[in-house]
Amino acid sequence: METRQSRRRIRPGASPGHAIETVAADATGGRVDWVRYSDTEMTEESAAPLADVLDSLGDGQVNWLHFDAPPDPPVLRLLQERLGLDALALEDVHNGGQRSKLELFENHSFVVVSVPLLHDGTVKVEQLSLFLGPRWVISVWPGPPSLLAPVLERLRSGGTGRIRTRGADYLLYTLVDAAVDSVFPVLETIAREVEDTEDEVLNGASEDTLAGIHHTRRNIIALRRLNVPGQEMLGALLRADDSPLGAQTRRYMRDVLDHHMRISDMMESLSEMIRGMHELNLATLSNRMNDVMKLLTMIATIFIPLSFVTGLYGMNFNPEVSPWNMPELNTRFGYPAVLLLLAGVAGIMIWAFRRRDWL
Amino acid sequence: METRQSRRRIRPGASPGHAIETVAADATGGRVDWVRYSDTEMTEESAAPLADVLDSLGDGQVNWLHFDAPPDPPVLRLLQERLGLDALALEDVHNGGQRSKLELFENHSFVVVSVPLLHDGTVKVEQLSLFLGPRWVISVWPGPPSLLAPVLERLRSGGTGRIRTRGADYLLYTLVDAAVDSVFPVLETIAREVEDTEDEVLNGASEDTLAGIHHTRRNIIALRRLNVPGQEMLGALLRADDSPLGAQTRRYMRDVLDHHMRISDMMESLSEMIRGMHELNLATLSNRMNDVMKLLTMIATIFIPLSFVTGLYGMNFNPEVSPWNMPELNTRFGYPAVLLLLAGVAGIMIWAFRRRDWL
Amino acid sequence: METRQSRRRIRPGASPGHAIETVAADATGGRVDWVRYSDTEMTEESAAPLADVLDSLGDGQVNWLHFDAPPDPPVLRLLQERLGLDALALEDVHNGGQRSKLELFENHSFVVVSVPLLHDGTVKVEQLSLFLGPRWVISVWPGPPSLLAPVLERLRSGGTGRIRTRGADYLLYTLVDAAVDSVFPVLETIAREVEDTEDEVLNGASEDTLAGIHHTRRNIIALRRLNVPGQEMLGALLRADDSPLGAQTRRYMRDVLDHHMRISDMMESLSEMIRGMHELNLATLSNRMNDVMKLLTMIATIFIPLSFVTGLYGMNFNPEVSPWNMPELNTRFGYPAVLLLLAGVAGIMIWAFRRRDWL
Amino acid sequence: METRQSRRRIRPGASPGHAIETVAADATGGRVDWVRYSDTEMTEESAAPLADVLDSLGDGQVNWLHFDAPPDPPVLRLLQERLGLDALALEDVHNGGQRSKLELFENHSFVVVSVPLLHDGTVKVEQLSLFLGPRWVISVWPGPPSLLAPVLERLRSGGTGRIRTRGADYLLYTLVDAAVDSVFPVLETIAREVEDTEDEVLNGASEDTLAGIHHTRRNIIALRRLNVPGQEMLGALLRADDSPLGAQTRRYMRDVLDHHMRISDMMESLSEMIRGMHELNLATLSNRMNDVMKLLTMIATIFIPLSFVTGLYGMNFNPEVSPWNMPELNTRFGYPAVLLLLAGVAGIMIWAFRRRDWL
Amino acid sequence: METRQSRRRIRPGASPGHAIETVAADATGGRVDWVRYSDTEMTEESAAPLADVLDSLGDGQVNWLHFDAPPDPPVLRLLQERLGLDALALEDVHNGGQRSKLELFENHSFVVVSVPLLHDGTVKVEQLSLFLGPRWVISVWPGPPSLLAPVLERLRSGGTGRIRTRGADYLLYTLVDAAVDSVFPVLETIAREVEDTEDEVLNGASEDTLAGIHHTRRNIIALRRLNVPGQEMLGALLRADDSPLGAQTRRYMRDVLDHHMRISDMMESLSEMIRGMHELNLATLSNRMNDVMKLLTMIATIFIPLSFVTGLYGMNFNPEVSPWNMPELNTRFGYPAVLLLLAGVAGIMIWAFRRRDWL
Repeated sequence: METRQSRRRIRPGASPGHAIETVAADATGGRVDWVRYSDTEMTEESAAPLADVLDSLGDGQVNWLHFDAPPDPPVLRLLQERLGLDALALEDVHNGGQRSKLELFENHSFVVVSVPLLHDGTVKVEQLSLFLGPRWVISVWPGPPSLLAPVLERLRSGGTGRIRTRGADYLLYTLVDAAVDSVFPVLETIAREVEDTEDEVLNGASEDTLAGIHHTRRNIIALRRLNVPGQEMLGALLRADDSPLGAQTRRYMRDVLDHHMRISDMMESLSEMIRGMHELNLATLSNRMNDVMKLLTMIATIFIPLSFVTGLYGMNFNPEVSPWNMPELNTRFGYPAVLLLLAGVAGIMIWAFRRRDWL
Repeated sequence: METRQSRRRIRPGASPGHAIETVAADATGGRVDWVRYSDTEMTEESAAPLADVLDSLGDGQVNWLHFDAPPDPPVLRLLQERLGLDALALEDVHNGGQRSKLELFENHSFVVVSVPLLHDGTVKVEQLSLFLGPRWVISVWPGPPSLLAPVLERLRSGGTGRIRTRGADYLLYTLVDAAVDSVFPVLETIAREVEDTEDEVLNGASEDTLAGIHHTRRNIIALRRLNVPGQEMLGALLRADDSPLGAQTRRYMRDVLDHHMRISDMMESLSEMIRGMHELNLATLSNRMNDVMKLLTMIATIFIPLSFVTGLYGMNFNPEVSPWNMPELNTRFGYPAVLLLLAGVAGIMIWAFRRRDWL
Repeated sequence: METRQSRRRIRPGASPGHAIETVAADATGGRVDWVRYSDTEMTEESAAPLADVLDSLGDGQVNWLHFDAPPDPPVLRLLQERLGLDALALEDVHNGGQRSKLELFENHSFVVVSVPLLHDGTVKVEQLSLFLGPRWVISVWPGPPSLLAPVLERLRSGGTGRIRTRGADYLLYTLVDAAVDSVFPVLETIAREVEDTEDEVLNGASEDTLAGIHHTRRNIIALRRLNVPGQEMLGALLRADDSPLGAQTRRYMRDVLDHHMRISDMMESLSEMIRGMHELNLATLSNRMNDVMKLLTMIATIFIPLSFVTGLYGMNFNPEVSPWNMPELNTRFGYPAVLLLLAGVAGIMIWAFRRRDWL
Repeated sequence: METRQSRRRIRPGASPGHAIETVAADATGGRVDWVRYSDTEMTEESAAPLADVLDSLGDGQVNWLHFDAPPDPPVLRLLQERLGLDALALEDVHNGGQRSKLELFENHSFVVVSVPLLHDGTVKVEQLSLFLGPRWVISVWPGPPSLLAPVLERLRSGGTGRIRTRGADYLLYTLVDAAVDSVFPVLETIAREVEDTEDEVLNGASEDTLAGIHHTRRNIIALRRLNVPGQEMLGALLRADDSPLGAQTRRYMRDVLDHHMRISDMMESLSEMIRGMHELNLATLSNRMNDVMKLLTMIATIFIPLSFVTGLYGMNFNPEVSPWNMPELNTRFGYPAVLLLLAGVAGIMIWAFRRRDWL
Repeated sequence: METRQSRRRIRPGASPGHAIETVAADATGGRVDWVRYSDTEMTEESAAPLADVLDSLGDGQVNWLHFDAPPDPPVLRLLQERLGLDALALEDVHNGGQRSKLELFENHSFVVVSVPLLHDGTVKVEQLSLFLGPRWVISVWPGPPSLLAPVLERLRSGGTGRIRTRGADYLLYTLVDAAVDSVFPVLETIAREVEDTEDEVLNGASEDTLAGIHHTRRNIIALRRLNVPGQEMLGALLRADDSPLGAQTRRYMRDVLDHHMRISDMMESLSEMIRGMHELNLATLSNRMNDVMKLLTMIATIFIPLSFVTGLYGMNFNPEVSPWNMPELNTRFGYPAVLLLLAGVAGIMIWAFRRRDWL
């Protein structure tokens, strides 16, 4: 549940944009990378005096400022002052835990992408925050750096791809694309889990299987929450009239939406499959119980009547007092006859069970 | 169920606006707080002669009248006469139990927010009623005062925030925001309940667990009822053409809608989780039954045949009458042989159970 | 199911408006009340020569003609001829069993409200049919007169309310309002049933509980069918462009829609609760079965091995023939040793059960 | 499943309109009835030389050509040539198994109504195909003639109804109306089945009940498939701008849509009821299992300890060897004491069961 | 799950259109067929020097280039250069695993149809990719050639059909039609499976049945994923304003949509049926368990009391010591009396079971 994260985040009644005005004691600096590139050149450095860097974003090249942790309140204030970033948007960056969304402001756009990560087999959601200005992109990603590393790679080896020749909106597209496509490996891991569980269930479920099904189900519930907001965000990015993306980039972004819809489809299927798994499991348990009960019933049905007969001839009625008292005990073939009787009864029982296909 | 509350409220066939025209015998006065503030100053007093206060609402400052209980019919009539508040809206305030909604009138707006509260672990719904006029807000909140206390705090410490510099619509936004955000702690409590129950189920459910799951489910059902009306109300507040909010405040209100949608998402997840919990519980019970049955079957399957053998040699056929009658009883190694036989049968049974992984 | 009612109603292939042209042998007259009122005066009489009454509806006062049973075909024909009521609408009145709907005709409107009634604990649906003309309302209600009695009351005591000062559309609103609000007591009864059943289930379900849950579920199914048509009908009454209601009355009618939506919410909650009840019941049954099985298994697991031991020493091997044959029988402490053994086995079993928390 | 029918119908890759160009070997002629009528007169004959009949359809009267089986390819070709009927529509007539739909062509319209029939208790779907031209209707109905017989009746006794005075679109309405209303008896039969099954389940389900529930469920699944297409078809017929029906007839058709919506409501209810039935059944089975297990547990719990005691005193320890060996056997009141003990144990057990309400 | 396929396909962070710029080591050439036809003539050859073929596509005839495997990157580049095909679309062709879709470009359209195939009883999805230019169609289909063979057949025997007289859009329609109709046999196979499983379940389910139900369910889940995208794709093809199809061809395509909707209906029904099957199975298992338990309970209930009695008279209390000790043993008719008692108890039990209908 995301609730644990949000516990400290939302203070009912707090002032909006409050985060910027507070010095959060627990904020940790984090690193800020500054990449600037054009068709022909590319520089990477640490955005050491951030104020200076922010002031120089307006030049001809595309600038990419990357924070690997939510910025401190002073930094947020700096961003608000120098670039005019929206206070509520910055608060969303600081608080995290937002749904995927696109917000348009006068001179910049704000994109949130919720990225699911598998952490010890459990889905956690991290928030990729992106600001898009005329010639710059600011990204905040507190998750594992491997998410955005390929984008950096492509920038470096810029000669072959087209990324260096395009504007900041193409960089935004690339980052969103990387975030959306990162869901595929997560889904594949879960799909493999589902398939393993399926085999387990069909071969005999254990308590562990139960917990496993439940765990996978929770993962899928966590994933599905991201579906609709993500689709809305991409849809908003694609709507022609007020999209911050150029027509060309929108064409590529449509591809991201395609991927997102395939992800949705896969989630729905996974969700139906885990549900089918639960029902398969229930039916398997019933089946197995039936088998156990059949065994018990067979044993009991065969031996209880036999034991009754042996109990009968274990009674101590005195044959000497009266000829009516258990005369069988003193007949010549009493014992063999009883043995035959017992074998006969058992035989009939076994035959009956065979007829019912129990044996 | 809300039905208990509504029992006395709705009298089929009663005249609309009827409440105002009746002196409700059971009405309790309640307190009325009057806060007026501007950028530079702020006064708090009790709205002692209410009529006078109402007449002075039109002055330059922002006025906030707060009732901590539904007003009496005479007060309602006063509100209707002096401020022109709508009779049906006032009746809704008096009756309570409304869905979240926005109603627009010529010179004022009426907002209802249903606020879920946890009362002894059970979700109760209280109604926050808000009237928004040109320079005033009237709020009625019969629930715990802690809901709106932070707003008052922010007003008092007005220098730092922006609340004192804005109009009455910003106050309305602040109150709605506080009401919506108050759902987060409720959800977190329920989420913790769900997680505790989950552990209980996985470690062995008891009757209490069952009742707990059911209780949590009812809480979630009660919460989910508030979802759609709340979203509709916020959506109506945001629709540009006839919203009573200024453009600036609408921007903040969009943030409240964001929160509300996260709440919806969390509720849906909780709802799916509690459903998963029920199914986990059912499967766990089946599993446990299987274990119990296996134990019974093992015991019975091992001992019933053994007991049959002992019963057999407990029969009283008279060996003296005929050599056919239980000659085993008089052989030298009859007893040890039978003991060996019994041990052998038991051994085979145990081996068979081990093969089936029952032991 | 409504099917039983409709059995005689729909004859596939019959001519539309057919009802009016037939003399239904089983039609029963019923009473027709005629109320005419204005701000200052009000008369109530029986609409004795109906034709005359119909001709005099056009005068200045508001006229309300009330039929307490579907009118006979001749009466229907009269209504068609004198007031120009639509033939198909009149057929709907005659047949009953319609969904809630609004139909607009050139000079009158036709409103159907499906009203659920509890009859011996089972939901039955009766149809309130309303015709609205310029200055008159015609109502047909074959159900209990208590539904509309409060409206008549309010008309009589007209001085206090506003009903006598308004037009015929306000009367229509009042009647629809009474019909919609009459659902609340029905829902409350069912909600109480659900709560009682809940207690029953948690304290130990019986066969009766099962039947009770099923009965309540059927009631809720029957109620939910009325939801969507009712909402559509009210929505149509509220749509500004072609509503037969005046702007003022539409304002009141919006209140009825509010009530209707609360009813819908409550029904959805009830529906989810009864579903939760079923699942609680299933889990309770499983739980109880587990308890029964545990008891059986405990008894069997403790005593079956003990009985085996007693059976063992009940065998009749002859100790005199050989020292190997049951020498225990002749030892000094054989019997106490066996008693100790039995106690020991039982003790271990009980200890094992305690460890598993079965005891 | 419809799949069986469609098996031979759809040949992937076949040319559209292919049917008309093939001489289907298995086509059976069927009869063609020709009814022509006006306000004053009506003739019925067999459309013997079909080509001549087709050429004379343009005259002043309304013409109704009825095929009681899908026409042969040569006939289809004739219809295409003489009346300009659409090739794909004719193929649909020939193939059958279409969804309900309306298709508009330049000089005629094509209506398909899927009509469910109960055949040996199983829902089969037959297709009523209707072509509507300026003054003619062509109908193809391979199902039981009773469906359309009432329409013919009404035409014959035309004086009383209005059917003879209207145009071809009214005839089309009448036929569609008859087809839609024919669903009511089917639904009633199924509703009766559901109610019978309900009684069975509550009184003790058998294997037959299970199969019955499943059968009814399949029937309802088959019926529900017809819902949405039917509604779409009627909606299209009612849309004012391009409906082939006159304004007057559309008024009547709206009535058919009303019926269709009632049918939908009833189906949804039936569907929910059969689902409730399944759950009732499951719970009943669990309940019954509980009863069986209780009986077994009671018997076992009472008698197994008793049998242990009797087994104890059936041991053969030799009292003569030692005073420790079963001295009870030789005491004066040993036997009565044991009998008392047994009775006491049994009494306590029974008392315990009574306390648990098992007895 | 499609995830296995997509595993190697999606590299998060990779450049779009990347496929074309890489020489895929594992690409296999595949064959390219070139069909050109007009009303009067038709040639079929291998598109040997592909570059030349591509340059000559602009002539008067309709050209159909068919690839029976995704083209190699050099070929993709060739297609991009000579025909201006979109890079992302070509990447989709290369990668496969797309949802059904229509993409419009300036001088060509791109259609993807997901075609389900049954492979060893499991649904696999293959992608049919189609490019439509002014006078040419390029198709890529790596699945079994039987899918498109009938189209080629119809082209060859062109004289009778109309395919040779129409343009390239009609060819596209024919190919899409063949792909959509190919789903019918798949559905029929699955429907037969469902029906077979149904019989199995009603006649006694085995472990295999369980696995079978689960397998079928997974197939249906896989199929249903294709539903919505397919419908969207066809809908886009039919939208009049920007469809790449001529008005005439759109008429035929509407027929394909009809088929697709019937397929959707059948899938929904299958999905509901397999769900019903699962529930039938669960109920059957419960039923059977009840039968097993009844048998066990009957046997135990009859014989356990009988065995108690025999145990009672197997006790060794010494009658010689006291007249109170088991005097029955020495009475004249003790044994027959006990036998009668046993018979009586058994008789009463059997009578009780008969009354409960257990026997």
